[in-house]
Amino acid sequence: MSEPASSSVSLACPIPWGAPTEIQLAHGGGGRLTQDLIDHVFGPAFANPALDARHDGAVLVPPAGQRLAFTTDSHVVSPRFFPGGDIGRLAVFGTANDLAMCGARPRWLSVGFILEEGLAIAELERIVASMRAAAREADVAIVAGDTKVVERGKGDGVYLTTAGIGWVESACAIGPAAVRPGDVVLLSGDIGRHGMAILAQRDGLAFESPIVSDCAPLWPAVEALFAAGIEVHCLRDLTRGGLATAVIEIAEHAGVGVLLEESAVPVTEPVRGACEILGLDPCFVANEGRLIAWVPAAQADAALAALAAAAPGGPPACIGRVRDRPAGQVVLRGALGAERLLSRLSGEQLPRIC
Amino acid sequence: MSEPASSSVSLACPIPWGAPTEIQLAHGGGGRLTQDLIDHVFGPAFANPALDARHDGAVLVPPAGQRLAFTTDSHVVSPRFFPGGDIGRLAVFGTANDLAMCGARPRWLSVGFILEEGLAIAELERIVASMRAAAREADVAIVAGDTKVVERGKGDGVYLTTAGIGWVESACAIGPAAVRPGDVVLLSGDIGRHGMAILAQRDGLAFESPIVSDCAPLWPAVEALFAAGIEVHCLRDLTRGGLATAVIEIAEHAGVGVLLEESAVPVTEPVRGACEILGLDPCFVANEGRLIAWVPAAQADAALAALAAAAPGGPPACIGRVRDRPAGQVVLRGALGAERLLSRLSGEQLPRIC
Repeated sequence: MSEPASSSVSLACPIPWGAPTEIQLAHGGGGRLTQDLIDHVFGPAFANPALDARHDGAVLVPPAGQRLAFTTDSHVVSPRFFPGGDIGRLAVFGTANDLAMCGARPRWLSVGFILEEGLAIAELERIVASMRAAAREADVAIVAGDTKVVERGKGDGVYLTTAGIGWVESACAIGPAAVRPGDVVLLSGDIGRHGMAILAQRDGLAFESPIVSDCAPLWPAVEALFAAGIEVHCLRDLTRGGLATAVIEIAEHAGVGVLLEESAVPVTEPVRGACEILGLDPCFVANEGRLIAWVPAAQADAALAALAAAAPGGPPACIGRVRDRPAGQVVLRGALGAERLLSRLSGEQLPRIC
Repeated sequence: MSEPASSSVSLACPIPWGAPTEIQLAHGGGGRLTQDLIDHVFGPAFANPALDARHDGAVLVPPAGQRLAFTTDSHVVSPRFFPGGDIGRLAVFGTANDLAMCGARPRWLSVGFILEEGLAIAELERIVASMRAAAREADVAIVAGDTKVVERGKGDGVYLTTAGIGWVESACAIGPAAVRPGDVVLLSGDIGRHGMAILAQRDGLAFESPIVSDCAPLWPAVEALFAAGIEVHCLRDLTRGGLATAVIEIAEHAGVGVLLEESAVPVTEPVRGACEILGLDPCFVANEGRLIAWVPAAQADAALAALAAAAPGGPPACIGRVRDRPAGQVVLRGALGAERLLSRLSGEQLPRIC
């Protein structure tokens, strides 16, 4: 429930006295002001040998014989700072978590900044400091980057696109194709916090207990499953679209049916209360530090123990099971036994959540 | 001088009849409309096994024992379509070329789309088709992607961030640190076309001969240098900031002096004429398909022959040489022998050029 790490981090090498304090179009022109940003903002924060070589890309040495995971995510969250995180922290963990969902230990990130003319450089420094702290927390290095600037009214302060590379540590292929009837669906912790934290911040809602985003790195949870010898069939981090959308996507791609038990899904009282007031289903609300793991039923207890020791937001729970039909359909059984079919939302529950 | 390949490419699997024809916020919500984009726009265009697995990232098998290059670039060019290319073509070649400058054969790209509400889906399809054609031309696979949508007035149609992975094929480390006195600076072709093409398109200028962007993949030129056994010390593609900024950056990071011969730098008559009318120095105008190679003077002729056979926009030229001092300074000697010191532009010659 702490504030984001960014707030206490300052940079050693500030923009020189007399230099602009707001982003100008020329900061994206590749000339002296671009160099100032690299020298005084990005360089000191992300210092590492690959970045310090100041070449067009990073040259890295992969471990022999390992498969590589590669992924990307753009981040346009509004507001940029919220309880439990900020756009920088989200961009680092979001891409690191997508790698972890491939069974890969996150190693290297790149980041593309699209800045709007007029952004305070102090705010950019705060975001960059938060990214540095998040990268340390997730044990990744930011090894390549790029900056572009767009005119006022053609952006919204900062958009970030991170891409990442990790080394696959799972013995078998993890993905929807490996899911089979008899698997159980495990959820690593309580759901709905990120979406409700953003919504409260954006609309100035004051709930009795403030809701803090669950934004967190998930590789330690995946590593714990591997260390416990779990045969992990599929992993998915819950982001926009929430738990329900993630389960539907996997059921459709795997061609299996899924029965979820609503009463088994952990939701904290503040999140449940806020969802009730606003008429939202927590199963469709965004998260940024929760995963579902699909494992053989026989390993459910061992997998839950591993997640309990390493996953943020626990205790984890077994929330459902895979059946052979109806293919692609996800059924949610309520506390009183009534069943309903879950389907993707067509509309947007909450735009620019990540 | 042909139109971009995109204009003649159509997609096999259009958006279903009755579906929205413009991007809505819900296209970025992770629900049904996001899935529609994946199924009908991105999936058919970029089809490959890694993307078709529909997981959180691509799992790829690197060749044994090779170093990896990793880079990223954001693209915000305005206008999105211009003579010789478009934002999609630029995004694919831009990142592929940054990999080539590390001595790496480009292999895989990711792409993050930041779309503005209201963008015509037909235009997105045109950009995606152009990316597909460019990826084929550069022999890379687009294996991972993400889409976000921002409200009207918070973007400008489409911003693209590509990241890329390549396999380093050079025996020695390529970069500013390898540059030494006695090296020569080779330029692969004529300069200034991309910047002048964008400027003409943006301001509705009609020059006598239309200027077409030089946007092109550069790996074939690098591969030709390697095949000819050239000991390549440094490579840099010329983008925003132009030839002059690239040479200054390398001279500064290498701690060497550079003497450039202005009369040796190839500039076509239309570009030279347009620059004179507008008071621009072609050495600072953006390019998207030209490189400089820093090689030992003894190998200059062999390297020029290799570039002549494989680099776009030739003939290539030897435009300067490296000397031990003054460290970090680039001197341009004019046709009449007068010398002037080149320094980075502080302002912006042309915003949103790439």
